[in-house]
Amino acid sequence: MQIEIDQTRLIDELNTLATFTDAEPSPEGTAVTRIVFTPDDLHARAWLKNLAIAEGFTVREDAVGNTFIRWQGSDPSLPAVATGSHTDAIPHAGMYDGTVGVLGGLEAMRALKQSGHTPRRSIELVMLTSEEPTRFGIGCIGSRLMAGIIDPARADQLPDLRRAEDDEATLATVRKAAGFTGPLASVKLPHNHYHAWVELHIEQGPLLERERIPIGIVTNIAAPASYRFVITGLGGHAGALLMPDRRDALCAAAELILSVEKHALSTKAIDTVATVGTCDVHPGAVNSVPSRVTLQLDIRDTDPARRERVMQAVRADITDIARHRQVTIDEQFINADAPAVSSPHIVQTLESICAAENIPYKKMVSRAYHDSSFIAAIAPIAMIFIPCRNGVSHRPDEYAAPEDIARGARVLAAALAKLASEQ
Amino acid sequence: MQIEIDQTRLIDELNTLATFTDAEPSPEGTAVTRIVFTPDDLHARAWLKNLAIAEGFTVREDAVGNTFIRWQGSDPSLPAVATGSHTDAIPHAGMYDGTVGVLGGLEAMRALKQSGHTPRRSIELVMLTSEEPTRFGIGCIGSRLMAGIIDPARADQLPDLRRAEDDEATLATVRKAAGFTGPLASVKLPHNHYHAWVELHIEQGPLLERERIPIGIVTNIAAPASYRFVITGLGGHAGALLMPDRRDALCAAAELILSVEKHALSTKAIDTVATVGTCDVHPGAVNSVPSRVTLQLDIRDTDPARRERVMQAVRADITDIARHRQVTIDEQFINADAPAVSSPHIVQTLESICAAENIPYKKMVSRAYHDSSFIAAIAPIAMIFIPCRNGVSHRPDEYAAPEDIARGARVLAAALAKLASEQ
Repeated sequence: MQIEIDQTRLIDELNTLATFTDAEPSPEGTAVTRIVFTPDDLHARAWLKNLAIAEGFTVREDAVGNTFIRWQGSDPSLPAVATGSHTDAIPHAGMYDGTVGVLGGLEAMRALKQSGHTPRRSIELVMLTSEEPTRFGIGCIGSRLMAGIIDPARADQLPDLRRAEDDEATLATVRKAAGFTGPLASVKLPHNHYHAWVELHIEQGPLLERERIPIGIVTNIAAPASYRFVITGLGGHAGALLMPDRRDALCAAAELILSVEKHALSTKAIDTVATVGTCDVHPGAVNSVPSRVTLQLDIRDTDPARRERVMQAVRADITDIARHRQVTIDEQFINADAPAVSSPHIVQTLESICAAENIPYKKMVSRAYHDSSFIAAIAPIAMIFIPCRNGVSHRPDEYAAPEDIARGARVLAAALAKLASEQ
Repeated sequence: MQIEIDQTRLIDELNTLATFTDAEPSPEGTAVTRIVFTPDDLHARAWLKNLAIAEGFTVREDAVGNTFIRWQGSDPSLPAVATGSHTDAIPHAGMYDGTVGVLGGLEAMRALKQSGHTPRRSIELVMLTSEEPTRFGIGCIGSRLMAGIIDPARADQLPDLRRAEDDEATLATVRKAAGFTGPLASVKLPHNHYHAWVELHIEQGPLLERERIPIGIVTNIAAPASYRFVITGLGGHAGALLMPDRRDALCAAAELILSVEKHALSTKAIDTVATVGTCDVHPGAVNSVPSRVTLQLDIRDTDPARRERVMQAVRADITDIARHRQVTIDEQFINADAPAVSSPHIVQTLESICAAENIPYKKMVSRAYHDSSFIAAIAPIAMIFIPCRNGVSHRPDEYAAPEDIARGARVLAAALAKLASEQ
């Protein structure tokens, strides 16, 4: 079967999607900020649905806004084959993270349809809600709910981190304001609802580019965890509070930030990464000693036990810091997930497609988590990675070459066709 | 002369002024946020002017909103005697900083008037605009302009730090929107416009309370300086950017914060204080490696040379941090001021008043800066300090006892009467 990916159309659509953004323009590249359920996100969703409807696909949305774009197969009674990713973006991010999997998935389905292919199993593209944790504090809300990994009542109560101090906004109120009103419990899909799931994504790491390999086949997805630390010291006037009397929360936070870095490096494992990504200072005035600092920590590893050993070492330092600085440091566990393992059958399918087309590939680990991490709880999964420049992601200079994107979409199309033909 | 300070009225007015606030209520005390030219500030100004007019004083406002409440003396051709302070408050501050000097000054004038006193020189109470640096980045804008210490054109261009990213608001546009439209150059007062200036203020430090002394007479005001540091590293995805490849701007900032603390402590001088009060992280997402961090440093000393030696030691560390972390650290000088020295004559006057009334006092240094630091450039100055609980200021639990406030106002009233009687 000849599959013709329309590279120009696909890149044009990626560029159009990037215009739904709330980011300041950046000299470094195309800056995208698209927080879930903001006007830019809702406009992007409407635009995507129109593209799908124009192609003759059907569109369904669930109670959290997961969007299902379906191409009916010749035997609709069989579990469908699915692909998907996300279109939301953290503040001041780039234009390829997630979007390549959504628009690449759409292009794969269109290319198959336009080549005259008729799938036996239906093929679905799923645009998943809030893969990024920016607005509600944890990522992959849409796929977690689909997989039954988060309690729907707890999810509905997640506070909107963008709300004003006296506001009560939660996922429940925000999704309703965006028009998604059903009970969250209805989002859950049954085990083996899908015959197979394949997600196309940029690598967000440097390995494929360094080794000049155009396709990565993901065999494992690392296990992320996140924590919040609230450091409470003693505030006061920056001129009048004497240095020996200080219990400066920001100085304590500085020691904690450096402790995290030290212990993550000390594992000497390339798969251990730990990041303090936010630092909120109260009261946050140049002439006021910080009385309270809130840090958020993201720590990941392919080995959850090693991840926990890093946390134990950080906790030992926290005890020391709290004692010698006379501050309190409150650790709040936000989330920890299990690592995911790809389906050997889908990995094998992807390998055989690459081999048949003479496309070099490597099997690899994803250190970033993806919606596929959670879909893995209800369906066989795998992921296709394509190279991105300098391994950069979550920045305006994030970049993937058009031919690499198109190649990824072609491998995805071939995999969807093969998997959808299976008995 | 018998001077009767109405303590109940003064405390009631302090409590009323504290209701003009944009702060969340605090369990720790009365939280006040009153940023210059916000609705709360404008309401507080209107209320204060009404109090003054009700007493028969005249009110004048200059182009930056400095408010002059004048009690005409029997010889209005002589330079007036003045007192004053500020009513603006940083985010989540307390209710006594500045306000004790303004309402205490008003009460001092009323008490003198109601006792039948007629001053020879006019007496003025001045409410000074934007003593706090919260909105425009530098403090004491009103008194700096009065003293000719800041260029009016430069002042008008100070950016409004509360503005949105795409906004162009400056002091010029913000003061005009608040109704203060004249040229800033007109704010400058001639040298020796005032015969004497005395400011009443809470100590904002622990010494008077510790030593159980009710009155401090300020002989020197420490010299503050402020700097901004912009640390630029390499951002990226918190899962995918490998630890050895990182150039994390927040880890570099943590080292800089600890360097400032170390070198400020190393002088072993009680008058050296240094504070990093803000830490803004870009992009500021839990799953994104910080690419840029902006810190603001406030450093003060009674000895400007010692202050500069601390800065030199911090700069040496900055060079090391930038090199070993492969980040750039840009130092931006915001402001540095000279220390101020009180007028021996006014200090002597205050000492003789305390001695005559059997009030224990001590001569002391102010480590916090005040509008008086700048008024010192155009008039003889001194300050009266009263104790505050635990030396706390700029926090909701800032507290001064009613009898200490009233005693401070009585000493101020006696000083104004004495100085206004002088030939």
